Amino acid sequence: AVLDMDIRKCMPCGPRNKGHCFGPNICCGEELGCYFGTSETLRCQEENFLPTPCESGRKPCGNNEGSCAASGICCSNEGCMVDSSCDQEVMFP
Amino acid sequence: AVLDMDIRKCMPCGPRNKGHCFGPNICCGEELGCYFGTSETLRCQEENFLPTPCESGRKPCGNNEGSCAASGICCSNEGCMVDSSCDQEVMFP
Repeated sequence: AVLDMDIRKCMPCGPRNKGHCFGPNICCGEELGCYFGTSETLRCQEENFLPTPCESGRKPCGNNEGSCAASGICCSNEGCMVDSSCDQEVMFP
Repeated sequence: AVLDMDIRKCMPCGPRNKGHCFGPNICCGEELGCYFGTSETLRCQEENFLPTPCESGRKPCGNNEGSCAASGICCSNEGCMVDSSCDQEVMFP
């Protein structure tokens, strides 16, 4: 748990760089929603070439397999689902 | 199964209307990828006010809970996951 704090947030992405990569093909931001396999996510593939691990989102969701990525949306690095536990809250404290 | 053929494709959406709605917050196109809860999907909520059912995508994926929505992406009306069974194939014959 202490180590968790050292993990950097994954690369910024999306319109006005207001999102963060959640996986090689997923870019989400609280104000943006999520992009999946679109031109906005191309940059997220660069994350594969960085040597240090990264993590985006804080609040766990989807049986702890993902984290809240945008309002009402829970994402892992492999996909996103609607999830009411991600509504409204401050997701990136 | 015969009835399936009468179900219209859900509303067009996304850049140049090259996508189709897959759910109230999901817009995908073969050339586009998928948008989830972004400005591109706002239009998909209008589908809620249309009296007839609709369906987007043809090839089933994800334990038959979704259909191929873009290259390598399987979506239901509640979410999208990477899915190699959706790679490359002609998804919208």
